[in-house]
Amino acid sequence: VRAGRFTPANLPYGVFAADGRPPRIGVALDDSVVDLYALARAGLFDSHVAGATEVFGSPTLNPLLARGRETWTAARARIVELLAAERRALHDAGVAGDAIVPIDRVEMRLPIGVADYVDFYSSIEHATNLGKILRPGAEPLLPNYRWIPIGYHGRASTVVVSGTPVRRPRGQRKAPDAEAPTFEPSRMLDFELEIGFITGDGPADGTPIAPDRARDHIFGVVLLNDWSARDVQGWEYQPLGPFLSKSFATSISPWVVTLDALEPFRVAGPPQDPRPLDYLATAGAQNYDIALEAALSSAAMSRDGVAPTVVSTTNFRGMYWNMAQQLAHMTSNRSRVRAGDLFGSGTISGSVPGTYGSMIELTGRGAHPLVLGDGSERGFLEDGDTVSMRGHSGDGDARVDLGEVVGTILPAG
Amino acid sequence: VRAGRFTPANLPYGVFAADGRPPRIGVALDDSVVDLYALARAGLFDSHVAGATEVFGSPTLNPLLARGRETWTAARARIVELLAAERRALHDAGVAGDAIVPIDRVEMRLPIGVADYVDFYSSIEHATNLGKILRPGAEPLLPNYRWIPIGYHGRASTVVVSGTPVRRPRGQRKAPDAEAPTFEPSRMLDFELEIGFITGDGPADGTPIAPDRARDHIFGVVLLNDWSARDVQGWEYQPLGPFLSKSFATSISPWVVTLDALEPFRVAGPPQDPRPLDYLATAGAQNYDIALEAALSSAAMSRDGVAPTVVSTTNFRGMYWNMAQQLAHMTSNRSRVRAGDLFGSGTISGSVPGTYGSMIELTGRGAHPLVLGDGSERGFLEDGDTVSMRGHSGDGDARVDLGEVVGTILPAG
Repeated sequence: VRAGRFTPANLPYGVFAADGRPPRIGVALDDSVVDLYALARAGLFDSHVAGATEVFGSPTLNPLLARGRETWTAARARIVELLAAERRALHDAGVAGDAIVPIDRVEMRLPIGVADYVDFYSSIEHATNLGKILRPGAEPLLPNYRWIPIGYHGRASTVVVSGTPVRRPRGQRKAPDAEAPTFEPSRMLDFELEIGFITGDGPADGTPIAPDRARDHIFGVVLLNDWSARDVQGWEYQPLGPFLSKSFATSISPWVVTLDALEPFRVAGPPQDPRPLDYLATAGAQNYDIALEAALSSAAMSRDGVAPTVVSTTNFRGMYWNMAQQLAHMTSNRSRVRAGDLFGSGTISGSVPGTYGSMIELTGRGAHPLVLGDGSERGFLEDGDTVSMRGHSGDGDARVDLGEVVGTILPAG
Repeated sequence: VRAGRFTPANLPYGVFAADGRPPRIGVALDDSVVDLYALARAGLFDSHVAGATEVFGSPTLNPLLARGRETWTAARARIVELLAAERRALHDAGVAGDAIVPIDRVEMRLPIGVADYVDFYSSIEHATNLGKILRPGAEPLLPNYRWIPIGYHGRASTVVVSGTPVRRPRGQRKAPDAEAPTFEPSRMLDFELEIGFITGDGPADGTPIAPDRARDHIFGVVLLNDWSARDVQGWEYQPLGPFLSKSFATSISPWVVTLDALEPFRVAGPPQDPRPLDYLATAGAQNYDIALEAALSSAAMSRDGVAPTVVSTTNFRGMYWNMAQQLAHMTSNRSRVRAGDLFGSGTISGSVPGTYGSMIELTGRGAHPLVLGDGSERGFLEDGDTVSMRGHSGDGDARVDLGEVVGTILPAG
């Protein structure tokens, strides 16, 4: 099943442009995009979503996000209804032809205007691996890790949609034995395989969002590649955390898969020991079973049509901290959450090498290079390399596909 | 000279609401606000600022910021012209009465829609003081400090305008000898005395902004209070930096003082040794001579009209890294800067105790409490305390006043 194949069980939302028309909101179905703006103009949401032409005619999902859970539920129910009866309603309204656009004719845009962007660090395996690499000889997992869903704010202005090329950043690096740092193109450019969730507005007065209310505020998820310059990160990150090593680009997939669609795939996460403090306590199935993979292609492989080399296969279900806990923690100090907020999960790594979600982990900081399909080796990313990440839950008619997030490295400018 | 007194040399921009009218842009002059939207509607900017009614009728400065340096210069020149000839032009246009509003009749709003918020750490004295407190026994200044203008991304959604009360955050804290952390109202709530700068758009393609071009993109400055929960910060900040200890609130002053107004007060900063790398190298006068003070009032002092106790007197001129270097560093990896970006300087501390810009430094982490005007002592902030910060350059007719940023602590919710 290729990434473009979206089942009726999925119906992810995105912002698309086609045939020279301004960008608007659509949902993906099979190999098509259903133009919700066209349906809204035909009056098909009149009794279901107030101001539907504004909401679905918008160049970002933000107006829909700002409407909140009730509208999300109503809109999805109506879309299911419209698409169910063999699209009769569309035909009757005379919009079927116009409103269904082949997916290969659309250009996908960044689905949201990013309000604030937060990136967590919620895979205990990733945190352990990175601790070993960045702080050799010390205890890899810091004492706060099992108490706090560690996170930090990232840069909203450089979140880009899948397909946007990523230019290799310049930055400061310093070898341990060097007297002074140098400023040059990063030599340790990496990806991080993540899932990001997107919210509507939180309570206006900043009332914290308890874990069991988190799903009221989380609209859906995307694949997220948190591009990272490891040499820059190693030198800059003390004491205030990563900054320029991350801020040059974050790529997300164009189709936002709703929590509603993912509901059948909710599963229990790993045991949490010690028990989280009360404000973070969750019970039952709070993780999501989403199979993930990351693949690399060299420029030569892309040119010759060689299939990308899968370098990591992992699953979102193993994350130590779940999304409900992340949102509860984030708002526990009454920080306001807004429509368009983006929260990255942190790199998703499993417990064995082929399941690690970044090259620094997969290669042991470059010591054990990956071998690509064309026989070339990679400690870190080279110019012209393409990173593609995919994710899905379920199979057959029940499959809920996240599509993909892709980016190709351009040489430093 | 009280904070409300703004000279014709200053003309800071702000967003104000008065008399039930929608918020719009004004400049402060003496004890009045000049309503630029009213002037624009009267046609007084027609030959000077294209679309002036849109720009000055906006509820944020962002449209003006997005216009860039040429418009900023033209607008300021025209305002000076309009206000110079004894306001004759205003009288002729019949708008003088309407367009000049007493400053005590306006309600000031957040002047910008904050795009991304970055906070630096550019006082070497502050970094040294904090290093001693947070990492006792280790070298206080980390090896990267003199090479990198250290900074991190903060939360844009919780930047608030002066006067907005600040609720004491709850958060995780853990004493070194405690077995587990607790979640409770912060007991070490602090202020940080900073200056923030506000930008227009950087180059759309992300071309780095060289230090000698920084002033093309920096519109002006505000006072900034980076409220900090020190107990939360100490427990959470490794390895990804401060998060919830800072994200609950950042207060800024309502009047944005332009770089144009501050130009007479440009001075050389402290020597930088080692010499910064080429992409950060600046020459000549790159700092600004801005006298600053922070003052505290207890609830009782506020109630009884007792003058606030000045607890810190310092100056912006001593910052190790200047604004041009901060912006150059930030964009050196081609991160895009947008209209409405806010960059905090980091706490502004001098080299002796009375010049430190935070309570954790002033009190040695609470060991040597401050004594307020009512005889009460403060290791950190108590509920009902009001923090006020002021700043100005020059004197008499040449005075350029930043006004003030004020916030009162509410009990944890």
